[in-house]
Amino acid sequence: IRQGFAEVIFCQSKTDEHLVQIYEDLYKQDREVFGTRASEHQYECVKNIIPEIQYDRVSRILKYENKEKVRKGCIVICTGGTADIPVAEEAAQTAEFFGNHVERLYDVGVAGVHRLLSNMDTLRKGNCVVAVAGMEGALASVVAGLVEKPVIAVPTSVGYGANFGGMSALLTMINSCANGISVVNIDNGYGAGYISSQINRLAIQTN
Amino acid sequence: IRQGFAEVIFCQSKTDEHLVQIYEDLYKQDREVFGTRASEHQYECVKNIIPEIQYDRVSRILKYENKEKVRKGCIVICTGGTADIPVAEEAAQTAEFFGNHVERLYDVGVAGVHRLLSNMDTLRKGNCVVAVAGMEGALASVVAGLVEKPVIAVPTSVGYGANFGGMSALLTMINSCANGISVVNIDNGYGAGYISSQINRLAIQTN
Amino acid sequence: IRQGFAEVIFCQSKTDEHLVQIYEDLYKQDREVFGTRASEHQYECVKNIIPEIQYDRVSRILKYENKEKVRKGCIVICTGGTADIPVAEEAAQTAEFFGNHVERLYDVGVAGVHRLLSNMDTLRKGNCVVAVAGMEGALASVVAGLVEKPVIAVPTSVGYGANFGGMSALLTMINSCANGISVVNIDNGYGAGYISSQINRLAIQTN
Amino acid sequence: IRQGFAEVIFCQSKTDEHLVQIYEDLYKQDREVFGTRASEHQYECVKNIIPEIQYDRVSRILKYENKEKVRKGCIVICTGGTADIPVAEEAAQTAEFFGNHVERLYDVGVAGVHRLLSNMDTLRKGNCVVAVAGMEGALASVVAGLVEKPVIAVPTSVGYGANFGGMSALLTMINSCANGISVVNIDNGYGAGYISSQINRLAIQTN
Amino acid sequence: IRQGFAEVIFCQSKTDEHLVQIYEDLYKQDREVFGTRASEHQYECVKNIIPEIQYDRVSRILKYENKEKVRKGCIVICTGGTADIPVAEEAAQTAEFFGNHVERLYDVGVAGVHRLLSNMDTLRKGNCVVAVAGMEGALASVVAGLVEKPVIAVPTSVGYGANFGGMSALLTMINSCANGISVVNIDNGYGAGYISSQINRLAIQTN
Amino acid sequence: IRQGFAEVIFCQSKTDEHLVQIYEDLYKQDREVFGTRASEHQYECVKNIIPEIQYDRVSRILKYENKEKVRKGCIVICTGGTADIPVAEEAAQTAEFFGNHVERLYDVGVAGVHRLLSNMDTLRKGNCVVAVAGMEGALASVVAGLVEKPVIAVPTSVGYGANFGGMSALLTMINSCANGISVVNIDNGYGAGYISSQINRLAIQTN
Amino acid sequence: IRQGFAEVIFCQSKTDEHLVQIYEDLYKQDREVFGTRASEHQYECVKNIIPEIQYDRVSRILKYENKEKVRKGCIVICTGGTADIPVAEEAAQTAEFFGNHVERLYDVGVAGVHRLLSNMDTLRKGNCVVAVAGMEGALASVVAGLVEKPVIAVPTSVGYGANFGGMSALLTMINSCANGISVVNIDNGYGAGYISSQINRLAIQTN
Amino acid sequence: IRQGFAEVIFCQSKTDEHLVQIYEDLYKQDREVFGTRASEHQYECVKNIIPEIQYDRVSRILKYENKEKVRKGCIVICTGGTADIPVAEEAAQTAEFFGNHVERLYDVGVAGVHRLLSNMDTLRKGNCVVAVAGMEGALASVVAGLVEKPVIAVPTSVGYGANFGGMSALLTMINSCANGISVVNIDNGYGAGYISSQINRLAIQTN
Ligand SMILES: Nc1ncnc2c1ncn2[C@@H]1O[C@H](COP(=O)(O)O)[C@@H](O)[C@H]1O
Ligand SMILES: Nc1ncnc2c1ncn2[C@@H]1O[C@H](COP(=O)(O)O)[C@@H](O)[C@H]1O
Ligand SMILES: Nc1ncnc2c1ncn2[C@@H]1O[C@H](COP(=O)(O)O)[C@@H](O)[C@H]1O
Ligand SMILES: Nc1ncnc2c1ncn2[C@@H]1O[C@H](COP(=O)(O)O)[C@@H](O)[C@H]1O
Ligand SMILES: [Mg+2]
Ligand SMILES: [Mg+2]
Ligand SMILES: [Mg+2]
Ligand SMILES: [Mg+2]
Ligand SMILES: [Mg+2]
Ligand SMILES: [Mg+2]
Ligand SMILES: [Mg+2]
Ligand SMILES: [Mg+2]
Repeated sequence: IRQGFAEVIFCQSKTDEHLVQIYEDLYKQDREVFGTRASEHQYECVKNIIPEIQYDRVSRILKYENKEKVRKGCIVICTGGTADIPVAEEAAQTAEFFGNHVERLYDVGVAGVHRLLSNMDTLRKGNCVVAVAGMEGALASVVAGLVEKPVIAVPTSVGYGANFGGMSALLTMINSCANGISVVNIDNGYGAGYISSQINRLAIQTN
Repeated sequence: IRQGFAEVIFCQSKTDEHLVQIYEDLYKQDREVFGTRASEHQYECVKNIIPEIQYDRVSRILKYENKEKVRKGCIVICTGGTADIPVAEEAAQTAEFFGNHVERLYDVGVAGVHRLLSNMDTLRKGNCVVAVAGMEGALASVVAGLVEKPVIAVPTSVGYGANFGGMSALLTMINSCANGISVVNIDNGYGAGYISSQINRLAIQTN
Repeated sequence: IRQGFAEVIFCQSKTDEHLVQIYEDLYKQDREVFGTRASEHQYECVKNIIPEIQYDRVSRILKYENKEKVRKGCIVICTGGTADIPVAEEAAQTAEFFGNHVERLYDVGVAGVHRLLSNMDTLRKGNCVVAVAGMEGALASVVAGLVEKPVIAVPTSVGYGANFGGMSALLTMINSCANGISVVNIDNGYGAGYISSQINRLAIQTN
Repeated sequence: IRQGFAEVIFCQSKTDEHLVQIYEDLYKQDREVFGTRASEHQYECVKNIIPEIQYDRVSRILKYENKEKVRKGCIVICTGGTADIPVAEEAAQTAEFFGNHVERLYDVGVAGVHRLLSNMDTLRKGNCVVAVAGMEGALASVVAGLVEKPVIAVPTSVGYGANFGGMSALLTMINSCANGISVVNIDNGYGAGYISSQINRLAIQTN
Repeated sequence: IRQGFAEVIFCQSKTDEHLVQIYEDLYKQDREVFGTRASEHQYECVKNIIPEIQYDRVSRILKYENKEKVRKGCIVICTGGTADIPVAEEAAQTAEFFGNHVERLYDVGVAGVHRLLSNMDTLRKGNCVVAVAGMEGALASVVAGLVEKPVIAVPTSVGYGANFGGMSALLTMINSCANGISVVNIDNGYGAGYISSQINRLAIQTN
Repeated sequence: IRQGFAEVIFCQSKTDEHLVQIYEDLYKQDREVFGTRASEHQYECVKNIIPEIQYDRVSRILKYENKEKVRKGCIVICTGGTADIPVAEEAAQTAEFFGNHVERLYDVGVAGVHRLLSNMDTLRKGNCVVAVAGMEGALASVVAGLVEKPVIAVPTSVGYGANFGGMSALLTMINSCANGISVVNIDNGYGAGYISSQINRLAIQTN
Repeated sequence: IRQGFAEVIFCQSKTDEHLVQIYEDLYKQDREVFGTRASEHQYECVKNIIPEIQYDRVSRILKYENKEKVRKGCIVICTGGTADIPVAEEAAQTAEFFGNHVERLYDVGVAGVHRLLSNMDTLRKGNCVVAVAGMEGALASVVAGLVEKPVIAVPTSVGYGANFGGMSALLTMINSCANGISVVNIDNGYGAGYISSQINRLAIQTN
Repeated sequence: IRQGFAEVIFCQSKTDEHLVQIYEDLYKQDREVFGTRASEHQYECVKNIIPEIQYDRVSRILKYENKEKVRKGCIVICTGGTADIPVAEEAAQTAEFFGNHVERLYDVGVAGVHRLLSNMDTLRKGNCVVAVAGMEGALASVVAGLVEKPVIAVPTSVGYGANFGGMSALLTMINSCANGISVVNIDNGYGAGYISSQINRLAIQTN
């Protein structure tokens, strides 16, 4: 396995010309290309030059991915609610693009802790777990109490009122009383996908 | 049951003379007296005039309580960790002084969710539940998901770093995705004892 | 009285297909259905499949409610100003849907404290009181000083300047010097409706 | 009446030598001298050179005041609780030193609004009212709703938890829905005494 | 002079029907009517029923004012920059509507302190001064150092970056080292107009 | 390798009796014992019952560790300045106690980026890197740009002024533009030691 | 060299008529004119009266500049990423308009510190350096460690999540452990262009 | 003139042995030594090995400085109040140690703007000006409006209440509407001394 991962395009706020150029260049070079935070409009622009490009409205990922890629090891990605799924999918598809096998456990938030407990088998398969949650963000603490693998916590901006655009979830996760949690920026699914890929790679490197 | 509860003395930052005076007056009037946030030194002062006064170093409550008081109904008080016990005891003893039966479930934090789950019988006994937790304060969400009674959440200042003296726990609780949670001030065990007494009283009034 | 309350739909940010599906399923199952934070557009969508559905532009509640429901006990809901009414109505209609009798006392803010004082009869009818207020949110303190029942305080985002989207009202309520107040999230009428229903249910359960 | 007021010494954090020097100079010049935020130790130092100096442990004011001063007009100073009295006394004694008549209404906080209402006669005597309150600081709103004179609101740092050293009271007062309130810094009794003196002077100037 | 001032309508976020109704009622009752924060669209609505109504695009005030009103005493209103003028005009026209004479000193901010100094004559005419400033809000301190009358400071949301919607100016003004400043909410021209009217009225009452 | 790690004692704010009891119990059970945030006084207490206990004044770790433990794999721990070393040592000794080999790179902060660059060999040895830094906390970004392994960032409370007890460093690290960084709480050396141990264990498990 | 610099127009939020008037006046007076934060629409308005006016969509600068201007000395302006370029160009073109020679080093952020190191020659040419960066803003610290000239740090609002509109970058820069950094407001390219012009002028004044 | 400045010791929180060692080493090497934030106790320790060392209780600087050093150019350092002098002296003596001539203008705060205006001659002598102020920190804006040289603004933690340990002054300075201001950390006199030395050196280099 090579050291670094393929370059990922952050589409947000790029001009159309600039974006199309980058997609064209990377696609020519790698026969693959992967971008996050793409808009519907950006999809249309890129499709003109790469007709096989694929856009996922949920994760807002715009990519063309090699179909034969083998996905190794295991990363588990769970969310507190359904509104956290777009961020979780950004993480999941990033990790898949980097060649990792991903298991999804969505809508297993702590207000109904039995949904999480009835999925302990899946949860324990991961070499690491990504916990995505907004509002009070308590999912990460409960998960980290249940598994002995590193937990990457992703606060989301889901919620309202005193959630301060995700800051409440971030603080919950940073102050967690459970062992084995580290945190990335609010809504940063990409970052969680990246670091979980680094960890999973370490776990599988000698297999 | 009469409407209001007995007057409670907030000892903190009162002068010695003033405090001793209030204790003396209330004791004479009610043959009972109850104060929160008392220091060791304040205990010594009051003992001079009310030798039977009792001081609890954990809750910092300084009281003389009628021994035959009947404690009715049920309030469950749980904490995330052992460091939250002083605040929980302020709540518990306030509620007991107001004539309520209290069940304690301490150190059942979400990093080990099975401790909580193995106490479901106790948890469900309460007409309401007081959830006391610092750090990330996730206990309230998990508890509210498990019971169908009002949950009074008490954030504590336990923790360090980005806990902002309890603000992180307060935000967690205010933003909870679980139904049936309302929140009092950081470390306000007294307030939680008071409001849970009001709720328990409603539940038992016609029995 | 059964333990839990009926499921409530949080309409905000759900896709049209998803929302219509949930309304259809719940309606089939219960012959009732109740959702909060619905938009005009979502109303149109749901009306296509449930023509008898009703939309309230003030509270943004989209529901079909069994007409013979008996509403028991009493919850009093008061607001500081007229701009707080949408949040108060979210609370009131939630409580009514859960089978509680509600009394409304709107626009009784503390800048004219006599309006509140001249409604003491109504205020004292409640097994609990919901106090909804934005700007400085002082209503909850005054109300809690006047009644001996639990007060659920709902800060609203009404105001401008240094109100920080409702945070000033939330802090006022959390720091209240009056006994018997607990607080829910900014603009969380639903949450206040839920917890006041739990409290009212306790009060009426044996009648 | 002359335009400016006499110079006031801010004792806090001044060195002993520096402080003694200023007291000596001002006393020689005016046969009066007035300082705020003085410590017990600073009192001892100054007493060595001005034996007739007077120290008030509550307000922490260290002064020698001309006994025949006529105090004119009327400023009403009220507090929410007894813990706010030190700040209120700083305001009151400042205003008195500047030649104004002061009426005190202490411990009339909004958790018991009837104490305030039963003092309407006094409240309405003032050409302006200073409202001193910590915790949630709601006193200013209620007062301003009851009088038609300018209200100077002084937030205090009294409280704990999410009071942020008085910031919660400051925000309450700044966001007040009542007309006729303006606000000074947390614990700034001196500032309120100064500005209320300016206002009272305007009211009495032609009498 | 009667005690209270005429009622002022806060137009923002009122429905068209509600607003038109209030304008009609007040106009019938007083032959005058005055509202703040009105939109162009609201002007059109009200014009239909009160053709003589007048709308000022700068201050966003929508009023019909008795032409023979005598304006007494003097309030000086100054701004740091030209972008603060809308807030200043809300204050000025409110004070004028309440029967006060107003002098305007606009764009005299502290980055060019000589503009302020060359207007000392005007500045000293006021029974009180309203200082309106955004960005760093230093104007209030300089003005209060130059006059011996009460200064009402109005922070504005003018600025960008770390101005936090006016919070930086508010903090500057609250922490001012100058004597005689009190502060109202960010952009609250109306509040400053009200309180300065109360002060000016005290100064002129016996003339 | 077994799944969980040995229990670690958080000494801070435990009573003497409680602490001594826990040390005694764990020591009897495991012939090893490890606690963080211990004071000099707590060391004296524990020494009475476990004379071979060892106290490190820098990291404040109080432990007795099996001398033959084999330390496997590699974790690199680097700091920005010398004042960050106590936190780094808490991390390093935690990881060592859990059986991991640690390389230390202290005082390689970004104000002198060449110190870091001249240690690339060491930096690249780690299966993961712990970056400990206060003040502006920029070290984590530079390190993550230089290595392809997971970086655990630990903000410290080192600094003054607008560092907000470490919050500035935390925000820097959470917002990093470099790939592969996740963050733990301010001064949480223990947490970084724990999660880096989990990661290193994954990397070495099959060797 | 004259003392002050030419007047610069802050176009944002000016009315069309007002803006066109200022452009016309300044252009007549100086045969040059320079404004920042101009919109496309404002460009159209001004072009009607000054057809030779030039608008740069990146920096949003709207100017007509004397072509023979000699640009002296050297200011180096570098950015962390490409998204920071609009702010950097505001700085660069401001400095050029004031007669300074500018060298640009864009996209040299600390996640790839070698891009910066391979441009040491350019970096050292400056009499001062402007470092423009968003997200974590670490660029300023690394640059200040590499040069012995004053570094003006400009935080940008580039980023998302916990970047608080640029506040995270501002705090990073203010807390920098490197010597020789001072900071301007978020996105304040103009301010950095101004102060770097003042510094460069001092350096070249006697040549 | 050589490029860098001599190394300065940050004494705060260094152990006695470590500090004495650094002083000894630097003194041997340079025959000069300079440290900031030294305590009385640290002075005693260092005096044992460098008897000629000098300690200034105001600035808390502990140094031995070559007496024949020529101080060139001019840096003006002004403060708002006398309480800001310790920070100003840290700046002044740092700049003097680095070979710069310093002019002091203390206690010229904006509440009495004439004191500043009557010192225009001194103010204009500086190649740059350091403006040190706490509370509302408005001094920097007024100074920058009066001079055409770079102004380095130093917020201080002087004040109370809503000054947030200097954050209010920092925000004032960062948001200044005056041209030519950049800001260093709260109480960072050393940093201002350093950067003003860099600027002054540029101005004098060819003389
Ligand atoms: N969703 C995302 N959030 C944060 N960083 C991202 C994201 N997607 C891509 N990136 C990073 O942004 C870099 C590309 O940035 P740019 O050069 O502006 O396109 C990538 O190499 C990633 O490091
Ligand atoms: N620990 C506490 N926290 C908050 N409020 C309290 C506490 N203990 C007592 N109180 C309240 O403080 C009131 C007495 O305040 P005081 O008159 O200052 O003694 C009581 O009636 C309670 O309302
Ligand atoms: N611009 C304003 N800012 C703050 N309060 C205002 C403003 N204009 C009017 N008000 C207040 O709002 C009250 C009317 O509120 P409402 O009943 O919602 O129309 C008036 O009596 C004033 O007290
Ligand atoms: N008062 C101060 N505030 C901030 N930084 C300082 C101060 N005094 C010295 N320094 C910096 O701290 C460095 C020395 O730090 P240290 O290696 O911990 O002694 C010096 O080279 C300066 O860059
Ligand atoms: Mg775990
Ligand atoms: Mg529940
Ligand atoms: Mg009550
Ligand atoms: Mg009033
Ligand atoms: Mg004044
Ligand atoms: Mg990396
Ligand atoms: Mg440097
Ligand atoms: Mg200037």
